Order: sequence, then structure tokens, then C-alpha cells
Amino acid sequence: MNGAQSLIRTLVGCGVDVCFMNPGTSEMHFVATLDAVPEMQSVLALFEGVATGAADGYGRMTGGPAATLLHLGPGLGNGLANLHNARRARTPLVNIVGDHATYHKKFDAPLESDIEGVARNVSPTFVRWGSAPETLGADAADAVRAAIGPPGQVATLVVPADVSWGPGGVVAAPPPLPQPQPLDAPRVTAIADVLRTGEPAALLLGNGALGVAGLSAASRVANTVNAKLFCETFPARVSRGAGIPEVERIAYLGEMATAQLEGIRHLVLIDAKAPVSFFAYPGRPSWLVPDGCEVHVLAGPTDNVISTLEALAEEVGGRPDAARPAGTSRPDLPTGELTTRAIAAAVGALLPEGAIVSDEGNTSGLFSSQLTAGCPPHDWLYLTGGAIGQGLPVAVGAATACPDRRVVSLQADGSSLYTLQSWWTMARHGLDVTTVLFNNHSYAILNMELQRVGTEGAGSRAREMLDLSHPDIDFASLARGMGLTAWRSTTADEFAKHLAAAIATPGPTMVEAILPQPA
Amino acid sequence: MNGAQSLIRTLVGCGVDVCFMNPGTSEMHFVATLDAVPEMQSVLALFEGVATGAADGYGRMTGGPAATLLHLGPGLGNGLANLHNARRARTPLVNIVGDHATYHKKFDAPLESDIEGVARNVSPTFVRWGSAPETLGADAADAVRAAIGPPGQVATLVVPADVSWGPGGVVAAPPPLPQPQPLDAPRVTAIADVLRTGEPAALLLGNGALGVAGLSAASRVANTVNAKLFCETFPARVSRGAGIPEVERIAYLGEMATAQLEGIRHLVLIDAKAPVSFFAYPGRPSWLVPDGCEVHVLAGPTDNVISTLEALAEEVGGRPDAARPAGTSRPDLPTGELTTRAIAAAVGALLPEGAIVSDEGNTSGLFSSQLTAGCPPHDWLYLTGGAIGQGLPVAVGAATACPDRRVVSLQADGSSLYTLQSWWTMARHGLDVTTVLFNNHSYAILNMELQRVGTEGAGSRAREMLDLSHPDIDFASLARGMGLTAWRSTTADEFAKHLAAAIATPGPTMVEAILPQPA
Repeated sequence: MNGAQSLIRTLVGCGVDVCFMNPGTSEMHFVATLDAVPEMQSVLALFEGVATGAADGYGRMTGGPAATLLHLGPGLGNGLANLHNARRARTPLVNIVGDHATYHKKFDAPLESDIEGVARNVSPTFVRWGSAPETLGADAADAVRAAIGPPGQVATLVVPADVSWGPGGVVAAPPPLPQPQPLDAPRVTAIADVLRTGEPAALLLGNGALGVAGLSAASRVANTVNAKLFCETFPARVSRGAGIPEVERIAYLGEMATAQLEGIRHLVLIDAKAPVSFFAYPGRPSWLVPDGCEVHVLAGPTDNVISTLEALAEEVGGRPDAARPAGTSRPDLPTGELTTRAIAAAVGALLPEGAIVSDEGNTSGLFSSQLTAGCPPHDWLYLTGGAIGQGLPVAVGAATACPDRRVVSLQADGSSLYTLQSWWTMARHGLDVTTVLFNNHSYAILNMELQRVGTEGAGSRAREMLDLSHPDIDFASLARGMGLTAWRSTTADEFAKHLAAAIATPGPTMVEAILPQPA
Repeated sequence: MNGAQSLIRTLVGCGVDVCFMNPGTSEMHFVATLDAVPEMQSVLALFEGVATGAADGYGRMTGGPAATLLHLGPGLGNGLANLHNARRARTPLVNIVGDHATYHKKFDAPLESDIEGVARNVSPTFVRWGSAPETLGADAADAVRAAIGPPGQVATLVVPADVSWGPGGVVAAPPPLPQPQPLDAPRVTAIADVLRTGEPAALLLGNGALGVAGLSAASRVANTVNAKLFCETFPARVSRGAGIPEVERIAYLGEMATAQLEGIRHLVLIDAKAPVSFFAYPGRPSWLVPDGCEVHVLAGPTDNVISTLEALAEEVGGRPDAARPAGTSRPDLPTGELTTRAIAAAVGALLPEGAIVSDEGNTSGLFSSQLTAGCPPHDWLYLTGGAIGQGLPVAVGAATACPDRRVVSLQADGSSLYTLQSWWTMARHGLDVTTVLFNNHSYAILNMELQRVGTEGAGSRAREMLDLSHPDIDFASLARGMGLTAWRSTTADEFAKHLAAAIATPGPTMVEAILPQPA
């Protein structure tokens, strides 16, 4: 057995049985092994950022890692932005990077570069070089263990070509499952005491608390002690919809976040970080916790978040029915002018039960959350790390993980263009993804930020750098070129009709919504 | 004057007056300054790899640096592959990366990441953080000096947002021009003595020797002492065509390179590296210099390559007319079946004088070099670092640098998909670039490499990872979606007609050549 075979068989044995890849020559032994190990599903991406974002989406939906397979330093670079988002999502992910043969590196061939420094950007605690075929299986098992955590992370395993092709590979046993952390009962009691004072308090939920169980327990606590309930601005995944308690996100804009938190005396973090401004702005604070507000940590990323929250609910005397689930409601189908609100209304009217929303709508997505709150239960995936070009790849991964669910990708125009190659992978695998493309012909968020950062003197030449018109981009033509069925909509009525058709059509579909360019 | 203003004004003062950019919030003060400094031309890219590759193409054609403007660590990651190619090309390039405000970094906001390690991948000797508005101008001048070299390099300047917006900026004076290195006369004499022995010898030319003057001097030497004349496999830029001495490239395939060098007893390197295999292959050598062949270094990247070559030509007694320029010839326009040879013939028949060829044809470009050798003088740009997705961005940069010349981008299908956003930038600026898109529905080179690396057991699942059909990609639809005029050709006659029209049409055009999928 060569190294590559031991690597793939070890991964499969560990439950890592999907690999999103864009391989090159140094990865050919991995590729050649795919026929011998049919348990490993391989998904080709035409750009590495699609592969890494898809692995992120897959991991968010399954909780277990997918693998990626990338080609040396430049391939890792191309995949880096979405690995950054995965790191911020704490998604378990086994990131395999092929390298030159060990003995070849000293010759400084054209593709030689410093992989280590790049990998550290996204894998601060696990970057390992496979050193021999005999130990590559064990390296893979260690990478899986590191990826799973807790906390989940991107674990990077660099595999030199001769370690792949050399004989002597040994399949390693799966790592032991992580043991749940014991409950920190004194901490729970202390925070219950704080909440019972009646002073204004808020719970701030992060990734581990945003499934149905976590939201239910948190809602029970919040309603019992009359605390506010928030979640982070860009969580990895939130369960939403009728029957599930709704949680308010901390706003992207610092001034709005400050308003949300005004008057709070106790902020309780539950697998969340205290809110900070996304960017720095002259004369405005980076730290968004109100003056005089005390920050308490109930649970961190390595804790058992759900049982801790449930213990807190008991401790504050929350009745089992104290959680407040969202009611059922859908907006009417929109009519008339096509606006971002009309689009959100159509999505709210049509979103299927069990849908997964991959949200990179940015400024155009403003109304989406509100108008889908009463839809049938669904999951919502956010832009965790702020590196745009996440939405379409994450949709690829989510659809691969959940082939029975419709994925709706709410996608800003500018952001889509970083990873539009995702559409082809959707088409190849017949993934049930409907992309809603907000074409407002601009980087609208930067038009807003240009003001907010206090620039002076910006005129037409500056605006030109934020503008996506001349030429206007025909996204439907782009999507069709990659094999999708696509529509262009210019009125709300058209959009609603097209979206209904797009959701009902098996496989990947796309509706381009033509919006006015923001002033 | 704020920091950003001092930065841009310093760059312009240093002659760096084009910036290829994909900015975000942390770069908004740079963007806002564009209106006040109209001397700085700004070119928007929809993906960072387009911006970095364009800066590479620009630098190759002008010899001076362009600037890039990228958004934090993820933006740098997206631009990394083409910065890698620029590093291998030794293109002077000032790579500006915006960062969070200095005081904001400790809050670990979503876009925070380790920029340093990523930047070191492409800028091993110059990565600097701007620390204050007062010194940012001087930092920029230092970056320009580092970029120019010699040798040319990617110099990375990281600019925190508050250093951009803070007051007190000072425009720095341009750095002194690099002084030419003195000639190493004893070295020239020693190598002349070697060449005069009459033992089989070859000159191997790299970047600094591949303009008209270098090729003429090298040809003079080679013809005088009866040495062979080669150049590196993937040089940055080669002057070619009728009236210019032709140089044979060392082949990509190691076994062919070995055949080219067989029997050589003296290999003289002129700003070149001794040939090594692009990848490692089991049981085949990485070092391609024949056994018993002595390697001599005439000139390295910091030497004055041209005057050293001319001195060598004098020293070996080369007559002024000893250089052997290529004759004038053009192939006939092709007819019948559309093949890669027919495409090369059409290019050879139609290539305009002064054209710039950006060559990422990979396997499909096999005949292009041979069938254009007698065309009117032109320049040829190669895939220096092996990181695919270079061809279209480099074409953007070359066309920006040389608006009076037609750029012909010979482009493999798989490689085009990494940076297809280039087409939009060509359309916005009306760049005279004609893309010839070889659509063979596969990563053809990997089909070849799958065999060459000695894999066993590869079957349909492995082949699927190298296949770009199902769905077939409609590249003309993609190019039209980004504003290009595009044609699809299925016969040689059609292709020749379309190519003639594409070259004659002002602005960016594209001809998609539909080829059979390699077996």
C-alpha cells in the first residue's frame, strides 16, 4: 500500500468520506486511489476557493470534517480566503496540501514556495508535514482529531509527492471521540446569581448555542430572568423558523450594535466573543460593550455548551415551557417594483421546509432575516470571517452534505465574482441549489463604508473603484455558461414567478434580480 | 496630508503610476485619494488574482513596478498565486496590503489574520508594516527601491487603516536609480577560454538576456564558438520574430530536456538557473544537467547581463554580423479540422507586428512557438511560476502597459477558470486583448501527468477529476457575460475567420476553439 492509499483509507475510516479538490501533478497518487476506495466521494472544484468553501459548508451542516486537496503553495493561497472563513466558523476541516517530493525541494523548481507560513494563517495549531509513507496514515488520524476538536479547526496536512507514492503505507485507527467537558457548576450558579439580580442583562450566543436545543435553553433563561437574547453578527449556522426561538443578531454597524446593547449591565457570553467593531473607524470605538457593563463567560468553545445552558435554565428556575418559539407566518408574494424588500418577501413566501440559506447578500440581504422568521424550520449560514466569495462555495458544501434539502444562496453580485466557478460544481453534481443573485451593479457596502471611514475628496475616480457597471455584468449568461438554468428578473412579479420555478426545478438554478444601483 | 495621500504621491513621484486593485473598507482612504492625484491610474479587478497578475504583466512590459492594492490577509491570499508567478518572473511590483488600524488588531475582529507569514511566501526580503503616517511615504520609496532591485521582486508594504487616515504624511523622494554592476572581466575571459576549447557547449539564457540586445549578443557568441543556444522553460518575456535570433526553450518534460542537453560538456548560465525537473517523478532525475557536464555562471540576476554578454562576444572574437536572426515566414491559413496545430497556424498567419502573446496554452499551445517564429517582431510572456490562472491577468497588465499593441492571450480552458474575471477588466478599459480559448474539455496536462508519475489503478473516478465536460463549459457565454465580443469556432476555417475578426475589432475579444477531448 502506498502512502496515498493509507491516507485515503485512514480518512474514510475516520468518517471523512468527502474530499473537495483541485489537484495537480503532485496530488496524482491521491487521485489515482479514488477508484480503489469508492467510499471516498470526490468533488472537483475549478478553483481552490470553491473547494475550501465547500468543505466549510459541508462541515457546518454535518458537524464532521470534509477533506480538501490542494496543489502546493499557490493552490493553498487560492483556497486561503475560505479557509479563513472556516477558521472563524470553527468548522472541522482536514486541509490536505500536496507538495514536491522531499528530495526535490532543494532544487527550487518553479512551484516551490514556503507553504508553512501560508498554512499557519488558517491552521495556527495544526500544520504537519507527512514525513514517510509508513506514518502518513497516523498523521491523517491526528489531523482528523485536531480538526474535530473541540474547538473545531482547519488542520493542515502537507503531503510530499514521494510520501504519497512510496510503499509501506499503514492505515491508522480513528482517533478516540472527544470526551464531553464536565459541567462547571459553580460558574453556572454564579451567573444565575447575576441574572437573578434583575439588573439589565443580555445573553450573547455563539456557534455552539445556535441549534434548536441551544436556542430553546437560552430562550428559557432569557424569558425567565427577563434578559435580552442576542447572537454574534456572523455565526456559522443558526436554526430558525416557526417553532424555534428567534435570536437577534448583533448588528454589523457599530452604532447600531451600541444601540442594541445600550443600558445592559451584564453581558453573558455563551460560546461567543464580546462584540467588537468589524472594522476600525476614526473616532469610534472598537470595543462595543457599553461602559459599566460587566462581561461574564458562561461557556467557551471547548465547553459542553448545550448542557451548560440547560443547567443555567434549571438554576434560574426556568419553566420547561418558558422558551418562546417563533410563530408561523409568511409574507405575501411581492408585486410591483423589484426591491431588496420584495426579494426578501418572495424568499419568505417560498422558502421550503428544511431549506438551508447560504447568506452572502450583504447590503441587499437586509430584509431577508426579518421576512423569513416565520417560515418553516430552516438553517441559515453566515459569512463568518468577512472574506467575501463564501456564499456560493458554502452552498456547494451544504448541498453535498444534505442532498434532500434545497439550498438557497442569497448572493451579492460583487461577492459572487470571487468564486463563481461554484456554479459548475453544482451543475456537475446536480446539487439542489437556487442562487438569488442581487445585481445592484456595485460594491454597495463599500459605497457606504467610503463615507463611514471619514474620507474626504472622494469623487468620480474613487466611485469608479466601487462600481460594477460599464460594462454591466450579465450573471445569467455566466451561470448558463457553467451549466445552470437561469432567469433574469426586473419586476417583483417576475422575480416571484422565477424564484418559484427555480426552487421547483431539480438541480442548480439561478435567478438574477436586476436592482437599481445605490446612489 | 494624510498617510494615504503621502503614499500615493510618493509612488507617483517614483514613477509607479498604475495601481491594480480590489480594495475593501481598510483601503478606502487610498481609494478616496485617487481624485486628488489623477497621475495615478487605478484599475479595478473583480478578484485579487487578476490584480496581482496584471501588475506582473505590466512590470514585464515596462520594466518598472506597478502597484497592487489588496484587502487584508484574505485579499493577499487571493492574490498569492500570481504574486508567486511574479516572484519567479522577478517582476518589480509594489504589493500594498491594507490592514486593520493598529489599535484594532488586538480585538481579533473577523478579518484579522497573520498577514506576515503569507506575505513572506512571495516577498522573502521585503515585507514592511507602515507604522505611522509620517514615515509611510519613506516606506513606499523603500518598497519601490526593493521592488526595482536588481533583481526585481515583489515588495510588500502593509498599511494599517489608521496609518492611512492619520495626518502628518510626508512625500518621500524617489530612491536613487540602481547603479549598473561593474563588468567581471576575469569571469568573461575564463568562460571565453572554456568556449574556445571546442568541447560541446550550450548557453542557457534567462530573463535578463531575452530581449533583442541579449539575444543578439548570445547568438553572436553561440555561432562564433559553435555552442547551442537555449533559454529557460518558462521565462518572463522573450523577444521573438523575424530579424531577432531565435532561442530554443528547454522542454517542460524532463526526458525531452535531457535529449536537448545530451552530450553537452559545458553549460554556461546567463541569468538562468541550471535546468531541473518541473515536478519529481519516481525513478527519474530532478537535476537535468548531463553527467560530466560542467556548469559555469557568466552572469546572475544582479549583474549587467547585456554588457557581460557583449563583452563575451568580443572576447570570443564574434564578428558583429555573427548573430543569426530569424527569417520572415508565416504559415498558411489553416483549413479543415480544428486542431491545436491549425490554431497555431492561424495565429502565425495573423499575429500583428508588435503583438504581445500571453501564453498559458499549456498542452494546447505545443505548436504555437514554432509557427510564429517568423512572424513580425513580437513579445512572448510565459507562465513563470507554474501557478495557473496567469494568462488572462498578465494580458490585462501587458495591454495596460502597451495600449498601442495587440495582446493575444493563448489560454487553456482549465487555467482560464481561475481568473476569468480578467475579461471584465479588459472590457471596462477597452483593452485590445484577443483571447484564444482552447476548449478541450479537460485538464489535459494532468491526464498526461497521471501516467508520468507512475500511478496505478486510476480509472473512471480518477479521470473524472481531470475532466471538464458534463457539463461542458460555454466560454463564449462567460466572456459575453463580462462584456466581451466572443465567437465559438468548430472548424479551422471558422477559427481563422473569427481570429481575424477578433484581432481587427478594437477592445477585448475572444475566440473559443472547440477541440476534441484528449483520450
